[in-house]
Order: sequence, then C-alpha cells, then structure tokens
Amino acid sequence: MASERPSSDSFKWKRKLYEIIFEADTPAGKLFDIILLWSILISVIAVFLESIEVIRVEYGNLLITIEWFFTILFSIEYILRILSVRKPLVYALSFYGIVDLLAIIPTYLSLMFVGSRYLLVIRILRLLRIFRIFKLTRFLTQANILKRALLAGREKIIVFLLTVLSIVVIIGTLMYVVEGPQHGFSSIPKAIYWAIVTLTTVGYGDISPQTPFGQFLASIVMIIGYGIIAVPTGIVTVEIAEAVRKNAQMKICPGCERDGHDSDSVFCKYCSAKL
Amino acid sequence: MASERPSSDSFKWKRKLYEIIFEADTPAGKLFDIILLWSILISVIAVFLESIEVIRVEYGNLLITIEWFFTILFSIEYILRILSVRKPLVYALSFYGIVDLLAIIPTYLSLMFVGSRYLLVIRILRLLRIFRIFKLTRFLTQANILKRALLAGREKIIVFLLTVLSIVVIIGTLMYVVEGPQHGFSSIPKAIYWAIVTLTTVGYGDISPQTPFGQFLASIVMIIGYGIIAVPTGIVTVEIAEAVRKNAQMKICPGCERDGHDSDSVFCKYCSAKL
Amino acid sequence: MASERPSSDSFKWKRKLYEIIFEADTPAGKLFDIILLWSILISVIAVFLESIEVIRVEYGNLLITIEWFFTILFSIEYILRILSVRKPLVYALSFYGIVDLLAIIPTYLSLMFVGSRYLLVIRILRLLRIFRIFKLTRFLTQANILKRALLAGREKIIVFLLTVLSIVVIIGTLMYVVEGPQHGFSSIPKAIYWAIVTLTTVGYGDISPQTPFGQFLASIVMIIGYGIIAVPTGIVTVEIAEAVRKNAQMKICPGCERDGHDSDSVFCKYCSAKL
Amino acid sequence: MASERPSSDSFKWKRKLYEIIFEADTPAGKLFDIILLWSILISVIAVFLESIEVIRVEYGNLLITIEWFFTILFSIEYILRILSVRKPLVYALSFYGIVDLLAIIPTYLSLMFVGSRYLLVIRILRLLRIFRIFKLTRFLTQANILKRALLAGREKIIVFLLTVLSIVVIIGTLMYVVEGPQHGFSSIPKAIYWAIVTLTTVGYGDISPQTPFGQFLASIVMIIGYGIIAVPTGIVTVEIAEAVRKNAQMKICPGCERDGHDSDSVFCKYCSAKL
Repeated sequence: MASERPSSDSFKWKRKLYEIIFEADTPAGKLFDIILLWSILISVIAVFLESIEVIRVEYGNLLITIEWFFTILFSIEYILRILSVRKPLVYALSFYGIVDLLAIIPTYLSLMFVGSRYLLVIRILRLLRIFRIFKLTRFLTQANILKRALLAGREKIIVFLLTVLSIVVIIGTLMYVVEGPQHGFSSIPKAIYWAIVTLTTVGYGDISPQTPFGQFLASIVMIIGYGIIAVPTGIVTVEIAEAVRKNAQMKICPGCERDGHDSDSVFCKYCSAKL
Repeated sequence: MASERPSSDSFKWKRKLYEIIFEADTPAGKLFDIILLWSILISVIAVFLESIEVIRVEYGNLLITIEWFFTILFSIEYILRILSVRKPLVYALSFYGIVDLLAIIPTYLSLMFVGSRYLLVIRILRLLRIFRIFKLTRFLTQANILKRALLAGREKIIVFLLTVLSIVVIIGTLMYVVEGPQHGFSSIPKAIYWAIVTLTTVGYGDISPQTPFGQFLASIVMIIGYGIIAVPTGIVTVEIAEAVRKNAQMKICPGCERDGHDSDSVFCKYCSAKL
Repeated sequence: MASERPSSDSFKWKRKLYEIIFEADTPAGKLFDIILLWSILISVIAVFLESIEVIRVEYGNLLITIEWFFTILFSIEYILRILSVRKPLVYALSFYGIVDLLAIIPTYLSLMFVGSRYLLVIRILRLLRIFRIFKLTRFLTQANILKRALLAGREKIIVFLLTVLSIVVIIGTLMYVVEGPQHGFSSIPKAIYWAIVTLTTVGYGDISPQTPFGQFLASIVMIIGYGIIAVPTGIVTVEIAEAVRKNAQMKICPGCERDGHDSDSVFCKYCSAKL
Repeated sequence: MASERPSSDSFKWKRKLYEIIFEADTPAGKLFDIILLWSILISVIAVFLESIEVIRVEYGNLLITIEWFFTILFSIEYILRILSVRKPLVYALSFYGIVDLLAIIPTYLSLMFVGSRYLLVIRILRLLRIFRIFKLTRFLTQANILKRALLAGREKIIVFLLTVLSIVVIIGTLMYVVEGPQHGFSSIPKAIYWAIVTLTTVGYGDISPQTPFGQFLASIVMIIGYGIIAVPTGIVTVEIAEAVRKNAQMKICPGCERDGHDSDSVFCKYCSAKL
C-alpha cells in the first residue's frame, strides 16, 4: 500500500485524503476507519433483517432506504479511494479494491435483478480490515502463519481433493445403481451429492440408503471417510508446525543478531535484548 | 488461594473454618469436601429429574423441597466462605467464587421467573474442585498443559474463527438467494445457521438444499469444510506438542539441576535422582 | 501366557493339550486355531442372521441349533483351557479368559431371558487372537504403540472429557430453557443428549432447535464444538508421535548394540546388521 | 513405462504410435493426450446427464449414441495401446491398463445388463493421467509423499479398523437389544449400520435411539467416537510428518552432495548450488 501513497509533489488535499482513508495513524484517519467499520456492520445487519419476512413486511421501506444510504456512502468512499491513491489500478485490482467494488454493485444491480441485493453481505469481508486498523499485528502474524501453512500444503491438498473427487464419483454411481431412483438416488449427480454428504461426515439424512446392500456399501464409504478425513488434517498440521518453526527462526535478535528463538519469547535467550 | 488464608492474629474459629472449607488436608476438611461433592451431585440430579414431566407430576413437590434444601445449604456455605477468607473480594471475583454464587441465585430467582430454576445446573462446575480435593495433581498438570496450549493458540484460533464467520455469512446468503424461502432457507440468518450446521459437519438435515444448483453449491461448501476442519486441529496439535515439550523442559532435577527430561521420566537421566 | 505353560513334570496329555489350544507352532495347534476362528465367525454370523425377521421366520430353528452347537463346543473348549493351563485363575481373569467365558454364557442365559442370546456377538472379540495366531508381530507392535499412546494421554483425555461433560450439561439446560418441551427438548437429560449429538458433530436431526434464538445458541455450540473436536486429536497425535519415537529408540542393533534407528529400518545404520 | 518402449529394431510405425499414445513430449503426443482427456470428461458427463430422468426422456438416444461413440473410440485406443507396447501383458495388468479396460467394458455389458452402463464413470480414473501429461512433477512428488505416509501407517490403520469393527458389532448388538425393531433397529446388521453411522459422526438420523436408555447408550458411543476419530488422524499426521522429513532428506545437493535440506529450499544451504 505504501507504494500507492501520492508523491510529495501531488496536491496537498490528495495526500491528506490518503492519510484519512487509507491510514489509521492520525485521529482523523482512525475516526474515519471506526465510522467505516460501524457503517459496514449496520448495513450488513440491515440486509439480514430485510431477509426476514415479518420484518420486511413491517419495516421494508426503512431498510431499503438504509441500504441505499450506505451504498451511496460507500460509492463516494470508493471514488475518493480511487482519486487519492497514486496508482488507482493497483488498488482497484487488489483484494480490498475488488471487495470494495463488489460491496456496492449489488444495490445498483437490484434495480434490475431483485435477488441480487442480498449479495451486499460481501461487505462483511471489508471488516477484515479491522486487524490493520487497530494495529493487531500479532493477529496479522498468526494469520500469515496460517496462510503460509495452507499455501505450502496446497499441492498435497489439490492431489487429495482430486482423489476424493474420483472416489465420490465412483461411489455415487455405484449407489445410484444399487439403490436407484425409488430410494432417493434419482440421478448420478444426486448420488454424488449423497457421497459427498457422507464422506465429509455431514450426513443430512435427506437421502440415505434403504436396501441392506446399499447400507453395507454406505458403511464401507463411511469407514473409508473416517480414514480420509485424517489426511487433510495431517497435511495442515504438518504444515502449521513447519510454518510456526520457520516463523520462530525468522525472529532475529536486534542485540546479537542471532536467531532460533521460541515463538513466544520476548527477550533474546543469548543476550537478553528485547526482541 | 494461599494468600487468602487468615493471618495468625485473626480469630481462631476463622482459621479453623478456613481449614475445613477451603482445604482438604485435615479429616474435617476432607469430610466437608466429600459431603459437598455429593450434595452438588444430588442437587443437580434433582434438577434433571424435575425437568422430566412424568417425574415432575409425581414427585414435583419433593424435588422442589430438595432443591430449596440444598440452595439454603449452599447459601450458608457461601456466606461462611466469604467470612473465613482474609480477602473476601478476591475470592468472590475468582472463578470458583463466581460459580459458587451463580449456583445459588437461580433458586431465589425462580420465585419471580419460573424457568430460571433449571439454571441451577451450573452447580456442576463446582464439581471441578474434585481434582484439587483428591490431590490429583497429575490431572491438574495435564489440565494446565491443555489450557496453556489453547491460550497459546488463541490468536490463530480467533483469526480462523473470523475467517469462518465471513465464509458462513457469504455462503449462507448465496444459498438464501439460490434456494429461497420455499426450500426452508426462510431468511439470511437461517441460511447462515444452515451454513454453520454444514461447515461444522453436524448436518441435522432440518434444512437441506433441494435444487440441483443448491446441492452443487452445498457440495463445494462441504469440501471446503473438509479442509477447514483441519485448521483448528492443526493449530491445537502444534500448540499441545509445544506445551508438552515446554512442560518437560520445566522439570528440573533436584540432584544435578539439569532439565530437558522426558514428560514421563521418573528419574533424572543424568544423575538418576528421583524427579 | 508363557508363565501358564504346564511344567515339565505335569501330565503329558496336559502339555499336549496346552500346545494345541494355546499355541500355534505345531500343525495340530495351528489347525485348532484356524477351526476356532472359523467357528467364531460362523457363530457370530448365525446370530446376525437370526436377528433378521424374514430369515428367523424361515430358518429360526436351524440357526438356534447352530448357536447351541457352537456354544457347547466353546464350553468344552473353555473347560479344556482351564484344565490345561498351570494357573487356571490367571487365565480365567485375563482379558481373553473373561471374553472366552462371556462368549458362552448368553446362550445359557437365553433359557431365562430371551434377548440375552444376542449378546453372543461378544464372541467377535475372540477373533482378536488372529494377530497372535498368524504371527503378525508387526501388527502387534503397532497395536502396542497405539495402546501406549492412548494410555500416555489418558489423564489429558479424562480432564478433557470432564470439561466436555460440564459444557454439555450447561448447554443442554440452556437449550431446554430456551426451546422447551414443545420443540422436542422434553427434559434436561434429553437436551443434554441433543448437546452431545451436536458437539460431537453427529447431528441426527431427530431434535433440532426451532426458535431463532435457539438456532443462534446452537450455532455457537457448533462453533465451540469445532474447536473442541481438535483437542482430543491434538492429544492423541502428540502421544502417537511420542510413542513412535520411543519405539524406534528401543530398537537395539544386535550387532553393535546401538539404538536410535528409524521405525522402518531393517538394517542397522551403523554396522548394517539385520535388526 | 520406459521398459515397455519398443526396441529400435521394431517396426517404425509401432515406435511412432507408442510416442503418440504413451508419451507427451512430441506435439502429436500432447495433442493426443489433450483430446483423450476431453473425450473422457465429455463421456463421463454424458453418463451423468443420461442418469437424470428429464434429460433421458428428451435426449436419451443422443446420449446413448455419444456413449457408444466414445466406447468404440476408447476400444480402438485400447487395442492400439496393446499393439504399441513391447510387453502388452505388463501394461494390461498395470493400474492404468486395468482402468483402461474397465472403462470400455460396461457399454458392451449394457447389451445384457441395463444398469451396468453407469459403471462407465470408472473412466474418471483415467483423468489421473493429467499430472503426468502436463509434467506436474511437483504434484506427483506430493502424491507420492501422501501415498508413502498412508502405506507406512497401514498396519496401525488395520489394527485400528479391526478394533473399531469389534466395537461397532458389540455396540450395534447392545442397541438392538435395548431399542429393538419397534424403534427402527430392525436387525443386528442394521443396528451395526447405525453404530457405524454414529461412530463416524455422519449421523443421518434415519435410525436414531428413542428410549431414554438407548439415548444414554448412544451418548456414550458418541463420546467414545469423539476420542476414536482422533486416532486415525494422529496416525496419518505422524506418518505425513515422517514422510515429509524423509523426502527432504533425500534431496541431495548436486554441488557438495550433502543432504538434509528443507522441503521447500531451492538452493543448497552449504554451497548455494541449485538443487
């Protein structure tokens, strides 16, 4: 984000605007962010309430007014963001840039497609800024560790998911042949849906095997699922352990420049300098 | 708790009382604790029984008498506890102090609010004293390891839960738009409830997708949930491994003062002194 | 079991009997064990079949005859076992001794209590001898590792289970108060049953919250359960890792007497002797 | 596969054919593989669609024509594969050889048995070639790590599964005796099916305990299942950690021939040569 900061020769108001909107170090910047977080929260709750029929009948107009109010507010904010950054395109294509845009479009779309208004809840992703605003760097560090662990394990996870997909396709088809449409397995895609529901141990019970042989087959699927559910957990655990270890090693003592400190150590274990 | 012990210049009966109520080293203290544990157990079972209609019709009055009997007993005990400790406020605001108070309030409240009586079951938390009373220090050590592991991982867990909350809000809303009220997804909050039921693999089946596209979306949610359920397990496993390792390192040999012993070693591995 | 072997001065037939019944090194001993395993399997399947109504109507008498045949056979075998061991009491009170007895009692009991006959399936535990009979020592080693891991973690697991029990009691009662008998939470024990079904992510859906507040509370329970399910997995994983490590360390090279070999190494890594 | 390559003295067209069908290094070979992957995908989707009744009624004949078209295509391909390899039997008995054959048989069988046609979905396994075709060696490495981890843990997993099987047989029978046919536990095999559904936390709810004692027993089963589900996860996690560690150690620096590099390191940590 630092690279998007307008250079010293740009208009003064642009720099000021940037400080208020993108940073949270000045009182004005912090106030802006807090108002923003509350606006997001209120507008999302308004969408929630509007979806409940008894409330919509009573307060529908009020809630739609609130929705439009916040949408226009966020639209102005989006335009100001675009104006105040040095590289608008970099911001617009960043994760938060896309979320900020997606958070206002549904209301405008709702003039054409009624249901689309509810997609406003994507605004909730804007709340993830909370960690940055309140300088919760420790949380950001931990979030990074988790992200790195999942990224490091992505190849194993993709291989695993493809194997699982092959398994559910074959199992689903077998169950379709064994149980058939008369027991709820009305098509292969539906039987695959059943296999996924079963293998992930969700088990709604909206479709369940009725014939003894189908139940026998399902039992085998469940016991396989039992072992299979262990695999992603194993992958993620190993990667988190690795990410935590690396994170600790990256801590370098400012006093003696040695590393290898424990993840929760506050002082250097060699020279007692504060880390 | 040691700091709450009345000083030597306080009244003798106060010290005696403290010994009986708070400690379990004297025969009187142990007897008190055992009677207490049984009283808690009986009074909780009485609440259980009272909630079963066929039993309430038959023995309702008896059970309410038992309830009042134990409530008055525990009230007297609570007053004695307050009287016997040196710093009543410290006790009153400690975990057990709050539980002891919450364990008597509901009966008095039930004079005004009928349902509140059932909240007496919070008494069950008083049973956790069992480890201290019977000197089950090994269990306390293990409980501490688990507590420390969960505390050490709390930032990762909070980051994870916030991510999961964002996911269920967005997924829930999508399903509300796709399936709609006619298939049980009667509002966004209800659809979010469905998303939580699905992502945690509970899967009641009280609401389940009916349309092919809804089932396709649900399948993706379940497969995501499959990977996601691995994350807290990974976090907790890594933290438990770390806590166990640290606990072992904290064991210091009284003979040679070296540490780093295995968690289950009984003798020092350097000088064979008993640990 | 070695200690139960009759001494050289005992009757010769007793030693012979011991060899056949308890050991599997001689052809007769092996044949005996294989016949035994098949008898157990057939008799358990007979119980299974007898419980299916359409089969019972048709072949009930045949199946009961089979059941009595095997029960008498196993009774004779049990008596011979008692007779052939040097210390009958040690055998009778061992795990297999108790299982062997429990595997014949239900048929005799069924003369008085009809349903008890089905408890014959406890015979299935006798099949666990399979590893010993076929000298599957590698499996026995792995079974021992798992057993040791679970034993090493038992204090953590007990502490964890007591915490979970307190949680389900309190959550169950809260849901009983919130949802009430009209929504299926007909008593506190039943609501606790619901809490267990939910927290363990089984989620039958036979009871599920109907009110918005109940569903909100249930969502919190599920998200807690999400984190909680991670704890036993973490405990067991750490203990298995420890048990595997220890098992590897216990492997001592017969050539150079050094240890610390990998769990799957076949040759000593120092002197290449076979382990 | 290298060993199946026809020797230089074999017919030129045979070598050419081998290059196109089995390898993906030449443009023709790559084109062949891409056409193959799409053919598999389309033919599997055709089977999916054919199983949906509304689509079958409308487009049944078209879909069956597509099916026969691809089956004949794959049959020709299978014959060419057999012809072009040097050792046809080695190919025919390899994993892919068997899958390739199983992927064409069901259509021919469907002339006799109607339902068998759906088993064509086994074709989906042919898609697993995708990693080899697109030279996704990193995925293959990770797949190998997972495979090795599961293989290394197979003895522990078998011991565990046998224990679980004994448990579900005994629990199922107990529930059959307690709940009986009038509550859905109509036979011991069905009650065992329920026990598996419960222990694996799938929990359809098609059968669920109705009596208080049955629900009490089920609660115990679920809490046991809670601990039990931790065991395979623990086993797999430990084995994955071991397999990842070994994989890292097998990386040998081409510069200094030292090993022990981190799993994601690109340069040697001793001499900075590219690994």
